[in-house]
Amino acid sequence: MFANRLLVIGGVAAGLSAASRARRLDPNLHITVLEKGPHISYSACGLPYYLAGQVREASDLVVHDVAFFREQRDIEVLTGHEAVEIEVGRRRVRAVVGETGQEKAFHFDRLIVATGAISDFRFQIADCRTAFNANTLGGAMALQAFLSQAKPRQAIVLGAGYIGLEMAEALRTRGLDVTVLERSAEILEGFDSEIAGRVEAGMTAQGVLLLKGSPALAVKDGEVISEAGRHPADVVVVATGLQPNVGLAEGAGITLGRTGAVAVDDRMQTNLPGVYAAGDCAESVHLVTGRPVWIPLGTTANKQGRVAGENAAGGNARFPGVVGTMVTKVFGLECARTGLSEAQASGYRAVSATIEHVTRAHYLGGQKIVVTLIAERGSGRLLGAQMAAAEGAAKRIDVLATALHARMTVEQISNLDLSYAPPVAPVWEAVLIAAQNLLKQL
Amino acid sequence: MFANRLLVIGGVAAGLSAASRARRLDPNLHITVLEKGPHISYSACGLPYYLAGQVREASDLVVHDVAFFREQRDIEVLTGHEAVEIEVGRRRVRAVVGETGQEKAFHFDRLIVATGAISDFRFQIADCRTAFNANTLGGAMALQAFLSQAKPRQAIVLGAGYIGLEMAEALRTRGLDVTVLERSAEILEGFDSEIAGRVEAGMTAQGVLLLKGSPALAVKDGEVISEAGRHPADVVVVATGLQPNVGLAEGAGITLGRTGAVAVDDRMQTNLPGVYAAGDCAESVHLVTGRPVWIPLGTTANKQGRVAGENAAGGNARFPGVVGTMVTKVFGLECARTGLSEAQASGYRAVSATIEHVTRAHYLGGQKIVVTLIAERGSGRLLGAQMAAAEGAAKRIDVLATALHARMTVEQISNLDLSYAPPVAPVWEAVLIAAQNLLKQL
Repeated sequence: MFANRLLVIGGVAAGLSAASRARRLDPNLHITVLEKGPHISYSACGLPYYLAGQVREASDLVVHDVAFFREQRDIEVLTGHEAVEIEVGRRRVRAVVGETGQEKAFHFDRLIVATGAISDFRFQIADCRTAFNANTLGGAMALQAFLSQAKPRQAIVLGAGYIGLEMAEALRTRGLDVTVLERSAEILEGFDSEIAGRVEAGMTAQGVLLLKGSPALAVKDGEVISEAGRHPADVVVVATGLQPNVGLAEGAGITLGRTGAVAVDDRMQTNLPGVYAAGDCAESVHLVTGRPVWIPLGTTANKQGRVAGENAAGGNARFPGVVGTMVTKVFGLECARTGLSEAQASGYRAVSATIEHVTRAHYLGGQKIVVTLIAERGSGRLLGAQMAAAEGAAKRIDVLATALHARMTVEQISNLDLSYAPPVAPVWEAVLIAAQNLLKQL
Repeated sequence: MFANRLLVIGGVAAGLSAASRARRLDPNLHITVLEKGPHISYSACGLPYYLAGQVREASDLVVHDVAFFREQRDIEVLTGHEAVEIEVGRRRVRAVVGETGQEKAFHFDRLIVATGAISDFRFQIADCRTAFNANTLGGAMALQAFLSQAKPRQAIVLGAGYIGLEMAEALRTRGLDVTVLERSAEILEGFDSEIAGRVEAGMTAQGVLLLKGSPALAVKDGEVISEAGRHPADVVVVATGLQPNVGLAEGAGITLGRTGAVAVDDRMQTNLPGVYAAGDCAESVHLVTGRPVWIPLGTTANKQGRVAGENAAGGNARFPGVVGTMVTKVFGLECARTGLSEAQASGYRAVSATIEHVTRAHYLGGQKIVVTLIAERGSGRLLGAQMAAAEGAAKRIDVLATALHARMTVEQISNLDLSYAPPVAPVWEAVLIAAQNLLKQL
């Protein structure tokens, strides 16, 4: 019936970026988006702020609704439609409609897989009335309702990655007693101990209990059982980590990479002709190492979606890759990283320098900022950077992200003409001082 | 008597950076700094905040005192010592000591000229009790005393560059009625009208009167006379602009560049052997145009001073140049620029795109930010950028400053992996959206 049918599986971030971009390139394409859940086009990164009460309504996190896509962009978005099989040979996707259990088939000429990521938690919580998986809008709304109605006092958060810490802070902000159980010996994966240690201090200062090396063994109503023992809990939030949601792709013969996510080229094309993948289910190239990585983040998802959508509509866009930029604001501290951490740089002849400086002129209330730069001995090339400060760390990391894209040396960084005015920066930026210090070791 | 005597003329920023760096390289050097004024090592950029009352004591702006340099760094800093002649052949500088008028000679093996910048105001205000030149700590302290004691109500600021605007805002903050007289038709030189217009709107909103195209013809106690007429004034602040203070250098046969500032190579060496120049009296290379420029700023002064000091002590440091990064916070708006403005890029086949976006997630109170990117048609190379926002513009410009250092194209910028978290950034950074828009025109 249609000359050119684009089907997109996934309607949170990458899938809708892809659909929107495809529409812009080709007004005649027939575009359908299948989303298994009830919600589309929302900011998953905003969920902790919704739970903390800083965002009044869940709907404030929603960017566009189904009607917007239908009326403004001529894109049909079907919620409650769970794709269950990609039939490659027949160029169609079978989906189950949530409410009725009815099955439908959607034919495609081009397909974009944007199935996202799912929790890596191995234990069943579906039957548990007091445990929540808060990385979807639906999950967060259920948790919100439970917090308001049951008024739990003791919360346990499973996982001390950035999402777990943001959730822990949100619950603490609401006045709950919060314990965080982390299976590994470290918190805030991807950050070195210099910064993770400061976050731990911030957690303690705000009365949050952290138990490291404590993998959860079971979650029940009223308690969590870990190797350390039984932990009473009025409410449990699961934030142990994510894994790419690739069952559907794998079942269709789409090749996965060594990271476990869908392998794609720089046009976001999979091994199957006309089938693209984008967002949290897909790999990227790490521009520092040149190797595929899986770093599920909203920024990357949107960029990949845009490229997949353009190419699926006959364009020729490329997504060169990422440098691993990530930022979180937890317990009063903006923590930012890009490139390789010291741990990740162990395969290089890496040297690092950590310095403390200020975010603004001291006489206008400058806050302490800690900066670590990591570089390769010999070449002097920057490999990575980390920062933390009560203010101004998040956007400062972008200078080093840009430097990584440009493969700059530490000496080049030490000469950067960065902005200065007393209310916003000190005359010597912390980055420049860190670069000067690191230069001495190179 | 001393094997190696380093003499530095100027003790505010570049001169002391140079002296400190030289000391670090050579513990045996005999280092003397001559400063004509009574104050050393202070933040001239902090003066408006001192006048606004945001910095309590003038001494808060002082980084180190003479005793610090003597005791901690073995550097002799002589205040009230005005260098009046560089006798190149005799390798000495003649200076007049302020209090006594006594003359002294200082021999040198290496000399660093860091005489800074002076006001370009052509009219005499020395005899005028109510007019102040507020770009030195002494001048600002005199103005501060006058404001406290005479309690003037009507202020006139001459000049609507960033210093004039910062001064106007400071006086307005203190409750004065403020009129700004600007000789040209534009305010905030170096910024294009998109941003300058927003600052004008901010001035109006805060009740500051701006008269453009109104060069002052005379300043008297009680009034300023401009082409537009007579303007009653209880207090006048002169902030018309700066020029390099090069009389001493010129008298010694030191070559000036076409900008009027001292010509230097990338080691900050002048045409005379063993004689360096650094800071607001010296040129830099603009890394976008490849041409010498004179952009007097504290960041550049400190970097140049560091390089001059290292080389004067026998090291081999280089200062590659600047990209014209500048930021000011005036009337509630952070205004930031780097590279060439649209006006400055007129010699290129320049195209630009201006977009509006937000500084953070809209649901966490993101503020409006305007971003202009300017690029060269054909090559696609970034030429410059400007931004303004109530928050977060200053440090965001550094991404584009870094991109200019790396000679990045707009396409490369559109793919930058920049940081995102709802409290600090939107998922699509304004810079990326601006780059996407500009790409369409390239």
